[in-house]
Amino acid sequence: MAEDLEQLVTSLARHAKQAARTLAAAETTRKNMVLLRAAAALRGPEGDAVLAANEQDLADGRANGLSRALLDRLELTRSRLDAVAEGVETIAALPDPVGELLDPRRLPNGLETSRMRVPLGLIGIVYESRPNVTADAAALCIKSGNAVLLRGGSEAYRSNRAIADIFGSALEAEGLPRECAALLPTTDREATSIMIRLDGVLDVVIPRGGAELIHFVAENARVPVIRHGKGVCHVFVEREADLEMATRIVINSKTQRPGVCNAAETLLVDATIAAAFLPALGAAMAQRGVRLHADERSLPLLGAAAVAASPGSWDTEYLALELNVAVVDDLDAAIAHVARHGSHHTESIVTRNADKGRRWVREVDASLVLVNASTRFNDGHQLGLGAELGISTTKLHAYGPMGLNELCTTKWVGYGTGQVRQ
Amino acid sequence: MAEDLEQLVTSLARHAKQAARTLAAAETTRKNMVLLRAAAALRGPEGDAVLAANEQDLADGRANGLSRALLDRLELTRSRLDAVAEGVETIAALPDPVGELLDPRRLPNGLETSRMRVPLGLIGIVYESRPNVTADAAALCIKSGNAVLLRGGSEAYRSNRAIADIFGSALEAEGLPRECAALLPTTDREATSIMIRLDGVLDVVIPRGGAELIHFVAENARVPVIRHGKGVCHVFVEREADLEMATRIVINSKTQRPGVCNAAETLLVDATIAAAFLPALGAAMAQRGVRLHADERSLPLLGAAAVAASPGSWDTEYLALELNVAVVDDLDAAIAHVARHGSHHTESIVTRNADKGRRWVREVDASLVLVNASTRFNDGHQLGLGAELGISTTKLHAYGPMGLNELCTTKWVGYGTGQVRQ
Repeated sequence: MAEDLEQLVTSLARHAKQAARTLAAAETTRKNMVLLRAAAALRGPEGDAVLAANEQDLADGRANGLSRALLDRLELTRSRLDAVAEGVETIAALPDPVGELLDPRRLPNGLETSRMRVPLGLIGIVYESRPNVTADAAALCIKSGNAVLLRGGSEAYRSNRAIADIFGSALEAEGLPRECAALLPTTDREATSIMIRLDGVLDVVIPRGGAELIHFVAENARVPVIRHGKGVCHVFVEREADLEMATRIVINSKTQRPGVCNAAETLLVDATIAAAFLPALGAAMAQRGVRLHADERSLPLLGAAAVAASPGSWDTEYLALELNVAVVDDLDAAIAHVARHGSHHTESIVTRNADKGRRWVREVDASLVLVNASTRFNDGHQLGLGAELGISTTKLHAYGPMGLNELCTTKWVGYGTGQVRQ
Repeated sequence: MAEDLEQLVTSLARHAKQAARTLAAAETTRKNMVLLRAAAALRGPEGDAVLAANEQDLADGRANGLSRALLDRLELTRSRLDAVAEGVETIAALPDPVGELLDPRRLPNGLETSRMRVPLGLIGIVYESRPNVTADAAALCIKSGNAVLLRGGSEAYRSNRAIADIFGSALEAEGLPRECAALLPTTDREATSIMIRLDGVLDVVIPRGGAELIHFVAENARVPVIRHGKGVCHVFVEREADLEMATRIVINSKTQRPGVCNAAETLLVDATIAAAFLPALGAAMAQRGVRLHADERSLPLLGAAAVAASPGSWDTEYLALELNVAVVDDLDAAIAHVARHGSHHTESIVTRNADKGRRWVREVDASLVLVNASTRFNDGHQLGLGAELGISTTKLHAYGPMGLNELCTTKWVGYGTGQVRQ
């Protein structure tokens, strides 16, 4: 049985890897046609089949006692499915990254070199709940010329299967192998283990989900991993901040959508302005139902919405209407706090002092470092990538939102006229 | 004891990681001064201490029965050490990659974004024999703002120690922590295991050495790995090749320096021109002492220098005066052969047909794909990077020679005026 599983996963991955070679050479129009066909299918009767499959997943989920939040993440409606189709159409409209030539040069010996953007090959994606990831991932990988091996959560298996089938049919209709977008036919955890050990077959694996999933993949993978890690994001209100702007940025960073990785979890306030800033901020937060976890210096300034922070608070990603607050002595102390507790995700300073802003940008190590803006901008759509497959907090290869370019690598190419080395 | 080792390695790595923050913020001139001081020391009395340490390593090596080839790799002479110093000076003269701003843009909401090149953080390097790697790696990492944790081979421990001490002193003389270039104080393999599992401390580990070392690191690492893998490089002489040029390129690719990864291991010849090309090529190879491993179709054409290839020949990196030869039907067959047996290193076609050259470049997946040039050009110096820390055959992050830019990542930066998300 275990051997069967090993053979099943390995064989599927090898077929996907083979399919990747065909896809890597496919013209832009053909790849776009696959995406437009899939989007049309999601909007049509095949979309109804996805919704029916999703009904069954939901029924099982309710029977298995899934939480309301998880059921909500799992649920597809006609309008959610239309949004998924629109996302696929958006990706079809983006420029094709494959074949782009960077850094063209002519070496002294006449060899003409450049770096050509090319697909990575076969990308493995391990994710949880939301079935829309199946469509997003398939569309982004196909557009960037990569085959993809998808391993979604067991609770969404039927929904994921129906969506993957739509992409498989769209690929076939355009004369491309359906294995370019392959869904693992089992959600057995052992199958994931086998998949992420296929060194030389998978070129990278991207885990998307909770800390446990990411840890499991990081511990067990033998192929390169790009992590979509947690976001313990900070806003630092520096002593020369415009306090009205700071209030707006803190509110937006925390409350505009608290359940996502680029929401702020900790507010740092310069001691010089703490007494001027925190009482009103505390009131504004209380009004929005935000619970504050305050250090000793900020607690007396924050009013009833605040409780004392615990030592673990500073490393916690709440993903909820909760916010840590700490008073720090100066810019250096704020940078040190972020170095200790940040998760290399998104870090914003509010200040009118341009030099201090530049120091923050230079010295803070995060995938997006901001001056006078909300942390919520760390997002592929917001930053102009058009779409993204998550936000990497791994520094290797991609640091920040992963769009089409980040799903590619560059190879060197050289055109010569008989050059040899001396 | 095992616990002591764990603590020793972990503590050293944490100190190096801490030092990395200081180095990341260091100005270009200070980093250059460190390198110039180290180079001067290598040329002066401290260099004599390196040579004395190397003498001891060599004496131990001889006592332990090290092969002549290994002893030669291990040996430092005054002139070799001067060449090492010159390499360090070359790196000092290269432009500083840190802080370079890429893709500046102004988003519709006024947020001014760009991507800033920044150091990776702490780079681990695991390598064998050649003590010059200690200096090259330290210089490249320091110049690119990275701290480095070095783990060299046990046979070169004293030499590596002496070289690392020179960099440590040069760092201190410039007011930087000497832990920016830290050598693991033991060559215990368990220490390497501990080092490459320090997820969150090491940002990447780069193994340089034989297949066994690379396999050990890939299997045991829990931090991202960039492999300097083996090179099974091909030259394909297409039917429209200039045969005189083809002969020059094959000879150069195989014999100019056979013991390195970018030397060719396999010659593919289009069936149409096999009879016109191979007899003379066989004679030229015999004259240079190259042993040919031939497939059934090429064997009768190659003369006395050829023996029958075995099934394993096509995947072998000889690193010696040995070359596989196979006749293939056409360009498609050549591309398929490379896809099956290549190691994603360097692949060259010889042809006068520009369309076929472009197809080769597009469809062959290797870190350098060439038309009408020797495979020996896959090298950081040759490709204009100034220096390199090896050639990556891992597609993630860096594919091909790793120069200063490849030892960096980019973070997003954004300057706003109070922007929040709607």
